[in-house]
Amino acid sequence: MPTDGEFDRIRAMLSVASALDPSDQVVIGPGDDAAVVHPRPNESIVLSTDLSIEGVHFRRDWLTWESIGYRAAAAALSDLAAMAARPVGILVSLAMPSELDTAVYEQITCGLTACLRPADAVLLGGDTSRSPGPVMIDVVAVGGVETAIGRSGALPGDELWVTGRLGGAAAAVLALQSGLEPGPGDRRSFERPAPRWREARWLAQRDAMSAAIDLSDGLAGDAAHLARASGVRLEICVDRLPVASSLESWSDSSVSLAIAAGGGEDYELLFAARPGVMSDVRDEFQTTFGLELSRIGHVVDGGGVGWVDRAGEPSVSPAAAGFDHFTDPV
Amino acid sequence: MPTDGEFDRIRAMLSVASALDPSDQVVIGPGDDAAVVHPRPNESIVLSTDLSIEGVHFRRDWLTWESIGYRAAAAALSDLAAMAARPVGILVSLAMPSELDTAVYEQITCGLTACLRPADAVLLGGDTSRSPGPVMIDVVAVGGVETAIGRSGALPGDELWVTGRLGGAAAAVLALQSGLEPGPGDRRSFERPAPRWREARWLAQRDAMSAAIDLSDGLAGDAAHLARASGVRLEICVDRLPVASSLESWSDSSVSLAIAAGGGEDYELLFAARPGVMSDVRDEFQTTFGLELSRIGHVVDGGGVGWVDRAGEPSVSPAAAGFDHFTDPV
Repeated sequence: MPTDGEFDRIRAMLSVASALDPSDQVVIGPGDDAAVVHPRPNESIVLSTDLSIEGVHFRRDWLTWESIGYRAAAAALSDLAAMAARPVGILVSLAMPSELDTAVYEQITCGLTACLRPADAVLLGGDTSRSPGPVMIDVVAVGGVETAIGRSGALPGDELWVTGRLGGAAAAVLALQSGLEPGPGDRRSFERPAPRWREARWLAQRDAMSAAIDLSDGLAGDAAHLARASGVRLEICVDRLPVASSLESWSDSSVSLAIAAGGGEDYELLFAARPGVMSDVRDEFQTTFGLELSRIGHVVDGGGVGWVDRAGEPSVSPAAAGFDHFTDPV
Repeated sequence: MPTDGEFDRIRAMLSVASALDPSDQVVIGPGDDAAVVHPRPNESIVLSTDLSIEGVHFRRDWLTWESIGYRAAAAALSDLAAMAARPVGILVSLAMPSELDTAVYEQITCGLTACLRPADAVLLGGDTSRSPGPVMIDVVAVGGVETAIGRSGALPGDELWVTGRLGGAAAAVLALQSGLEPGPGDRRSFERPAPRWREARWLAQRDAMSAAIDLSDGLAGDAAHLARASGVRLEICVDRLPVASSLESWSDSSVSLAIAAGGGEDYELLFAARPGVMSDVRDEFQTTFGLELSRIGHVVDGGGVGWVDRAGEPSVSPAAAGFDHFTDPV
């Protein structure tokens, strides 16, 4: 039930978003009762929602409005990446305290579109409302996919791989919680996470992923989701975790491992691959994307997640040391 | 970033929602990184979001949790109706104060599914989070359509029609605001609005709608949206408005007309029809659906909305009397 002021804000958002090229798959875009999207031949439509709530997922004093918008879109597009889907667009529901003016809507939309533009994705629609409490942003990601990669396809014997490095975003949150400015690499990991949809599609086209999940909650938690969905056990070698470069210099490696394994919002991909498949594609991947690929473990019979050291001996979970609050920045 | 408690709540929602039959178009349902939906041949996918926020759109002391869930889903499915789309399912993002327990999630889901079931639509996915403020529900409606009916197709000469009766939900809000119990008809209009997707598809199949919008903001406001999108002027006869039966007995007809024209959340359809088309289908529609169809005006050159009396003379807008607060129940 938008008021006149809300229509002004919608118009402000649309004027920023109209800089995006229209997509051939968008039959009706923003401004009607609903958006209409036509998938390409042989494609299905992939849909996911991602909530970003002030005081839970972000703080105004830690991020610009543009970064708040960017991260909300990145979290949603990362869910598409985890299915190996191609981004088509997003719908955005914004609930905002009435004292925030049109400029804030424009800045959030600038951040949203900064994340959409490299994907040739567009703003499809959404809703706005006054919020009597915190800012709430719900981003609906809409994608297209020929064959979706789910969480449930991992089999015993598969290898476990992860893209990029882990813990940078959590290290930034840890610094901010302590009143410190994060290092520039960690600040960038936190502010401008890169949803890995291009990487996921490249791997899927080479039949390199049997199951995949994006690391939004943190490796330890998301590995448990993948294990449960596939009905298998994941054994992860703590010594193989690719920790963010800022964490490598920490004197207490148990803390840096805890951050890398327990910290959320890396938006890297964890995936299972049939044995040996990755040896054919790893170098080309790293050359193509300038992004590391690390083999961190394997899939066995059973359930849950087991942590082992380099010798294969059981190890304590690095995330068990009470670092759960890394998944909740406030 | 769900916590263990949030996963419990998601499970509670899914256990309620799993009573719905799976749909042939749902390739992957809840529980993965995203849902995957496959449209039927020749169909496009229709997408809309609808925010329901405590203190703006609803109050806990006016409605059960089940009704809060039902209304959130009905508002979203009504957007599909306005495009003449067939409901496929919804995604639901829920932000809830942490003191609310799993039973509340179950009751909200019962309400959501009560609205979905008659449409053979399913819960496709969503997100949950703690809210440090009010309850927020964002429902994403997903539909399929061969040819969408937008807001922009009305032409001068078209007739203007509306389904059902108007003002019942607003009359209920007015009673509740005054500390009174609404009449049973108005209470039902407020608690259990019927999204008119069956009616819209029936009319679209008979080429009876050139443009359509659902009445969520109220007739006066939504007519202005349709006029703007079509680049036309709508002339509406105040004496032809089908006011809710509870309003017919009001002694001051200007107040009942104000409620019918300015009150939101009726979720009836306002549509334009080419001249004479409706004379062939009106009786069959009313027999098929047991729902009134009223011709309330026509489309002319120009812009905006004009109000006329039965003689065609200009009339004051019945909604101009400061009843805007009917669109905001709190």
